[in-house]
Amino acid sequence: MENDFNKEEKNGLYKAIFSRRDVRSNFISKDINTKVLTRILRAAHHAPSVGFSQPWNFILIKNHDTKKTVKESFKKEKQKAAKEIDGSKKSKYLSFKLEGILESPLNICVTYDPSKFGPFIIGKSSVPNTGLYSVCCAIQNLWLASRTEGIGVGWVSILSNDVLRKVLKIPDHIIPVAYLCLGYVYEFSSRPDLEKAKWLSRLSLDEVVFYEEWDKKQSPQWNEIKNMIKANLDYA
Amino acid sequence: MENDFNKEEKNGLYKAIFSRRDVRSNFISKDINTKVLTRILRAAHHAPSVGFSQPWNFILIKNHDTKKTVKESFKKEKQKAAKEIDGSKKSKYLSFKLEGILESPLNICVTYDPSKFGPFIIGKSSVPNTGLYSVCCAIQNLWLASRTEGIGVGWVSILSNDVLRKVLKIPDHIIPVAYLCLGYVYEFSSRPDLEKAKWLSRLSLDEVVFYEEWDKKQSPQWNEIKNMIKANLDYA
Repeated sequence: MENDFNKEEKNGLYKAIFSRRDVRSNFISKDINTKVLTRILRAAHHAPSVGFSQPWNFILIKNHDTKKTVKESFKKEKQKAAKEIDGSKKSKYLSFKLEGILESPLNICVTYDPSKFGPFIIGKSSVPNTGLYSVCCAIQNLWLASRTEGIGVGWVSILSNDVLRKVLKIPDHIIPVAYLCLGYVYEFSSRPDLEKAKWLSRLSLDEVVFYEEWDKKQSPQWNEIKNMIKANLDYA
Repeated sequence: MENDFNKEEKNGLYKAIFSRRDVRSNFISKDINTKVLTRILRAAHHAPSVGFSQPWNFILIKNHDTKKTVKESFKKEKQKAAKEIDGSKKSKYLSFKLEGILESPLNICVTYDPSKFGPFIIGKSSVPNTGLYSVCCAIQNLWLASRTEGIGVGWVSILSNDVLRKVLKIPDHIIPVAYLCLGYVYEFSSRPDLEKAKWLSRLSLDEVVFYEEWDKKQSPQWNEIKNMIKANLDYA
């Protein structure tokens, strides 16, 4: 089974992963093609889920009043968070464009329903959070599929989930996980916005990989992979 | 920017998404190629992360004693969970093969470090869980990349995180998110194991999509997408 993806198919997957961006600007107003949107949602729905519980829902949003309410919540939460930062970092933070709620033609709220197919879900007893993890995998599928279709996705997490619950009539037992802004774009940035702005740097792969146990960076039997990782070659 | 992926590249991404499986059997003992493993890890490391915080780490595990300890934890937790189920469902549950810890040549523990680049992370103030969500996106990248390389991945969530912490020397402030089993396989199942076993059914896409607010299934302006989703066409 090692070769059931040809070179171009493999390349498609890696290209999507490495060129995917969190998009906050460059949206054009053109509506997303219906067939394309269906395909993206189906990709999300085919994510892995703990015990096959498929605990996600997708609320599609175009209503301008809803978007305006969410945008207001964003503004408020952005100011609130600014109080945690000092000095020049604060003004830099405040200058960043961090969402495209109104400019993007489609918003999607992705939610987690812990009660779906419950109460017993295989694999959820020892680590209850796994239901939430499944929803995140669905979001990443949606994000990658969108990228191949030329659609930018921005995840807005600077907002109040209480406001989301209220404006979208989400019941108490359902957890809003992500608020996404989708639309065709003029261009995708070559690097993440916060990397370009020198807010934070990309870690080297070597820094995030350990061998056999936490923080162990060396081990004779791992030398080959360690050297390959340190060489920091392009994915090709 | 609508057409920067050609047909075969797009197909590669969708093929990975729709043919990805949670793999618990069919592993062959062949070691994963070093270059391929580096590529998969790099794909994981290029996931989106809140405020570009890259809060993940990957502990690569081949040590047999570690695997045995994790397998023991799995057995214990599987029996514990069985107590929550009644009757014929219980024996069915106990008959399922739910992990390939010892058979897979490589195990990876993916962890979340809430303190990385902290304390202030853009986008994390209002929804602190977003750090955890980022790690899940990295896991899904790893899973899809593995699939295109012919490598099966199984996520074992029937285990004790306390046991993981102890055997992998994970500090208290770090959260183990996933324990993954990786290896080349004889074949990938055409459908999820729990679907094939008729434990649960795949929901239709129509059941998980709402329009403008929670549980709203109809709206004149959404008719076109609604009809397309209900038609339940193949992704092509």
